[in-house]
Amino acid sequence: MKEISVGVIGCGYWGPNLIRYFNENRHTALAAVCDLNRDRLEQIKFKYPHAATSTDYRRIIRDPAITAVAIATPVFTHYKLVREALDAGKHVLVEKPLTATVKEAEKLVDRAQQKKLVLLVDHTFIYTGAVRHIKKLVQGAELGSVYYFDSVRINLGLFQHDVNVIWDLAPHDLSIMDYLLEERPVSVVATGASHTPGGLADVAYVTIAFKGNLIAHFHVNWMSPVKIRKIIIGGSKKMAVFDDLDPAEKVKIYDKGISLARPSETAIHQSLVQYRIGDMHAPAHDNREALSTEIEHFVSCIKNGGTPITDGEAGLRVVRILEAADRSLKKGGAKVRL
Amino acid sequence: MKEISVGVIGCGYWGPNLIRYFNENRHTALAAVCDLNRDRLEQIKFKYPHAATSTDYRRIIRDPAITAVAIATPVFTHYKLVREALDAGKHVLVEKPLTATVKEAEKLVDRAQQKKLVLLVDHTFIYTGAVRHIKKLVQGAELGSVYYFDSVRINLGLFQHDVNVIWDLAPHDLSIMDYLLEERPVSVVATGASHTPGGLADVAYVTIAFKGNLIAHFHVNWMSPVKIRKIIIGGSKKMAVFDDLDPAEKVKIYDKGISLARPSETAIHQSLVQYRIGDMHAPAHDNREALSTEIEHFVSCIKNGGTPITDGEAGLRVVRILEAADRSLKKGGAKVRL
Amino acid sequence: MKEISVGVIGCGYWGPNLIRYFNENRHTALAAVCDLNRDRLEQIKFKYPHAATSTDYRRIIRDPAITAVAIATPVFTHYKLVREALDAGKHVLVEKPLTATVKEAEKLVDRAQQKKLVLLVDHTFIYTGAVRHIKKLVQGAELGSVYYFDSVRINLGLFQHDVNVIWDLAPHDLSIMDYLLEERPVSVVATGASHTPGGLADVAYVTIAFKGNLIAHFHVNWMSPVKIRKIIIGGSKKMAVFDDLDPAEKVKIYDKGISLARPSETAIHQSLVQYRIGDMHAPAHDNREALSTEIEHFVSCIKNGGTPITDGEAGLRVVRILEAADRSLKKGGAKVRL
Amino acid sequence: MKEISVGVIGCGYWGPNLIRYFNENRHTALAAVCDLNRDRLEQIKFKYPHAATSTDYRRIIRDPAITAVAIATPVFTHYKLVREALDAGKHVLVEKPLTATVKEAEKLVDRAQQKKLVLLVDHTFIYTGAVRHIKKLVQGAELGSVYYFDSVRINLGLFQHDVNVIWDLAPHDLSIMDYLLEERPVSVVATGASHTPGGLADVAYVTIAFKGNLIAHFHVNWMSPVKIRKIIIGGSKKMAVFDDLDPAEKVKIYDKGISLARPSETAIHQSLVQYRIGDMHAPAHDNREALSTEIEHFVSCIKNGGTPITDGEAGLRVVRILEAADRSLKKGGAKVRL
Repeated sequence: MKEISVGVIGCGYWGPNLIRYFNENRHTALAAVCDLNRDRLEQIKFKYPHAATSTDYRRIIRDPAITAVAIATPVFTHYKLVREALDAGKHVLVEKPLTATVKEAEKLVDRAQQKKLVLLVDHTFIYTGAVRHIKKLVQGAELGSVYYFDSVRINLGLFQHDVNVIWDLAPHDLSIMDYLLEERPVSVVATGASHTPGGLADVAYVTIAFKGNLIAHFHVNWMSPVKIRKIIIGGSKKMAVFDDLDPAEKVKIYDKGISLARPSETAIHQSLVQYRIGDMHAPAHDNREALSTEIEHFVSCIKNGGTPITDGEAGLRVVRILEAADRSLKKGGAKVRL
Repeated sequence: MKEISVGVIGCGYWGPNLIRYFNENRHTALAAVCDLNRDRLEQIKFKYPHAATSTDYRRIIRDPAITAVAIATPVFTHYKLVREALDAGKHVLVEKPLTATVKEAEKLVDRAQQKKLVLLVDHTFIYTGAVRHIKKLVQGAELGSVYYFDSVRINLGLFQHDVNVIWDLAPHDLSIMDYLLEERPVSVVATGASHTPGGLADVAYVTIAFKGNLIAHFHVNWMSPVKIRKIIIGGSKKMAVFDDLDPAEKVKIYDKGISLARPSETAIHQSLVQYRIGDMHAPAHDNREALSTEIEHFVSCIKNGGTPITDGEAGLRVVRILEAADRSLKKGGAKVRL
Repeated sequence: MKEISVGVIGCGYWGPNLIRYFNENRHTALAAVCDLNRDRLEQIKFKYPHAATSTDYRRIIRDPAITAVAIATPVFTHYKLVREALDAGKHVLVEKPLTATVKEAEKLVDRAQQKKLVLLVDHTFIYTGAVRHIKKLVQGAELGSVYYFDSVRINLGLFQHDVNVIWDLAPHDLSIMDYLLEERPVSVVATGASHTPGGLADVAYVTIAFKGNLIAHFHVNWMSPVKIRKIIIGGSKKMAVFDDLDPAEKVKIYDKGISLARPSETAIHQSLVQYRIGDMHAPAHDNREALSTEIEHFVSCIKNGGTPITDGEAGLRVVRILEAADRSLKKGGAKVRL
Repeated sequence: MKEISVGVIGCGYWGPNLIRYFNENRHTALAAVCDLNRDRLEQIKFKYPHAATSTDYRRIIRDPAITAVAIATPVFTHYKLVREALDAGKHVLVEKPLTATVKEAEKLVDRAQQKKLVLLVDHTFIYTGAVRHIKKLVQGAELGSVYYFDSVRINLGLFQHDVNVIWDLAPHDLSIMDYLLEERPVSVVATGASHTPGGLADVAYVTIAFKGNLIAHFHVNWMSPVKIRKIIIGGSKKMAVFDDLDPAEKVKIYDKGISLARPSETAIHQSLVQYRIGDMHAPAHDNREALSTEIEHFVSCIKNGGTPITDGEAGLRVVRILEAADRSLKKGGAKVRL
């Protein structure tokens, strides 16, 4: 029985995926789809003749039969749409990043709490078996102290006309970092360059500092000839690599690292550092589609009154870093405190 | 006929390679080797019974029969050793980086010019067929305007006890950037972290800004579980990838990029940017060992009075960036003008 | 306007793909789906509420409103189902291999011709941009004379309980070979082994000989820990590699080969053969989904009375080789003439 | 103290490696080198001024000061040279394959036994840490029953003018199979083709059958545009992949396989076979140069009177398969009993 009736607003790049998974989930019924572009709507109608379509999002928000709304529109519209949906009593799943500003994000977090509604930010990677597996490693201290978190997400493609490459690509990796690490960021340094009119950075580098000697770095690029999506996490005991494009082994754990000799034991020409090169291990992990797991989780939160793993707070923490990165970028790489 | 008699000072990590190639070159005779470590000297004696060995470098510098000196010692010793060798009238090939400070490098450049001696900095990669090939592409404007230069050189290994990871690994990539690009850097932002006593950064990120919208970035890491040595050069027309670890195709040229639509032609929801995804091309190139080519070049400069491609000036330019990166690193990522 | 009404028989492994693409094609309407398994039917009903479902395939074959039938059932049922569909005047798209015996295939080819109906065998790879591109290279003699065709298709997975691994996996590669090469096979040698009860080979090697010195070889394996899908085509001028699992460059053309020195020019210790190592080239090619292109082609043949590229004759040629391979396999690798 | 004086006969492709390692070993002195080509001898003299050179191999064989002889000449000369060396009381290390015929190999095995001299066949791969590690897995039954041994060794290169591609490349993989597996081969089927004057096969496929359902297959090719050196070993419990070209992880163990359901438990449409997809594991292993280990072993056998792991018997077993493969090849793939 499909007890949750869902409306989807926005069916550009990501929306059709939401539509497909909401249509296939056992608990959700795809009730209505909205987009400003009539051609897109026609294609949706073609594949899903049972769903209503409209160019007016208010049709969805005002429909009392609709329980939950999924929003996959440009970032600058998120605040308004999510707020209206929450005000109308709908549970909301919203595309990342949550909003265009920290202030907006804070307001939405408050509103969802007041209204006791589920607000899930679509940080899809948190719902992959791969990231879940690494979370266990970090929690179980298998990696030891985390030394660095290095992420590369580059490709040729999908220039956005309203946000720069940091806002477009980094939320994926920032949300993974936010989920995996206990430590909280203290400052941001961002550099980048733009090669198109409008001046939105299309290549950027973001360093995040923490209290101790943990460092995180993010390389995002819309103009790379090669596609790379790789995160390396260095720990004092072991190291992990998450290569999202490896079709067979997305997570690899390396029993590699360094050990420190006691200074008294070493002569002047010797290094204090010794290497440990052990085995590599690629654990089997759940391969279910992340979006399917995420929608299950959304459904479960709605039915059981739970708080999503990627709730408004998680979305807010990511937006906080994005906003700081933007400020740093504008000042040519100045350090910005969080 | 081996007309150039060579002495090598330092046979730790890199020295044995210099020794081997000087021994095999038709024009150079391996006359003497010096190192403070007697075990290493014994091994050299074992393989090259015809070479003299000593723990005193002055034996080499004072030997009137020796024409050229190769120096592969820790960075902090370079200035003193190179200066003494030049003062003794020897041509010098010195390990990268040239010196530990800009001041020292400037003095050595002057000294070599005054004495009309060859001073070649061992920026080995400049002598690879791969980098030479990319140079031709850049010169021939095949890539168009260069948009970015992105370098990653990471591995588990070889912690130095006297310099940080930037001074150890980045000179390779800085020298490649210096060789390939016409533009001159204007400022540096460096971030990093240390995880060993002594506080030398073992992971670091360096962004270099130029006058226009060209950006360069360097990721160096001594504690990566995976080995990567990759440079991506994005251009307005084409893009190049230099993967030094690809055994078959080190250079790949991608006929990929973006083209800009005229604003008048585009509706509000359309992107101004369009993608061009064309062929990939991996040119065959000279596969000779770089060190062999470099030593040929050193010999040729000595015999014909030429200036090396990687002369003291090139070494100085690299040291200038290294020094600026250190200053930025100490200030937590502050922008440092060059 | 969806003028072609389609019924799909069989929705196990491959059927759902056919269903999805027939549902999305502008010219075809998914009218009915049949399978013996009620759970599967329910899932289909769930996603495609507009399609009729039944456990009786005759509902589809007898439905006068249905123009075309797609059959994705076990091989041993193909003959009966295709024949009944043709007899009922339906155009047919049938899963590979066409039938379980050469005799059956011959009969179906005849029947389709008599009834002037389209019979398309689902040799999907023929409809990929990659294979189409290689076809152009072969036709344009860019590779020169073809020396060998080497195919590997191995993976852990999908043991069939009615056919061996040759019948299951080799049709893909045999159909590609059949499409690309002008030469016709003259004999087959097949070896293999079975490691499960029932004795169906799960690993096998098939060599095909041609009139000249062209040789083709096929490695198929259901029990490989790694997934490989690679075809190498060696030519006298150039060589091509089709790596179906390479997400970026599926086709690579190598300007590599040998040239023969004249015997008179060579001394006794020299080889007559010299190597040519030139550039590698990865052409951009059409990346559309093969099944989408195939269904377009099926539609076009139905509407315009054309003969499919992968018609019954092509299906028959593949079955001929499969049958010969089986005979060879049973005789422990004896050569079987075609 | 270098107590073993060594002469090397043949310094074409492989000889220089033997020379280098004999020169560097602590127990062996490079006394003399012989080759018919004076240019090569001059190059050797240049690098190793302390070694005697000659175009007459008898200078080495007759030199009473020489204890051991290494032979790296064309295959057809092996029998004569090894025999003369043994007759002169020298220990012998000979290039693979041991001889050009089974008869010759049998004679050399006998002669070495009679004379109580060490005869080591240079099956280099047996001395790699990778193959040693896999041996332990097989011996420890970690893989379970071995189902198949699949080897690919292809490249563009090094056409031999006296032997075909099977004799040139397959000895590597046949010796690995011989070392790793307990089972003994019972028959051979070989197919191949030649594309150069002289008719020596340059691409070939060899299947080896054993008593049970174990199967081995070898793909060797001198005309491949890509270089592959990969062995897959499928077992009932686990599977191993040896990729000699992987710079980081040469050995990977996959906890993958199948399990058989009891027929009573399965319905007609279900497969009896179920998949097990577990972790992958890449063990760290000894990375020393195989040739260095091999020469240590040769020295140890000479000093302690031991029998080499790759003794004449091992060499003979490989030649037996090569001879059978040749016979099968000539008959177009007929099964040849061993």
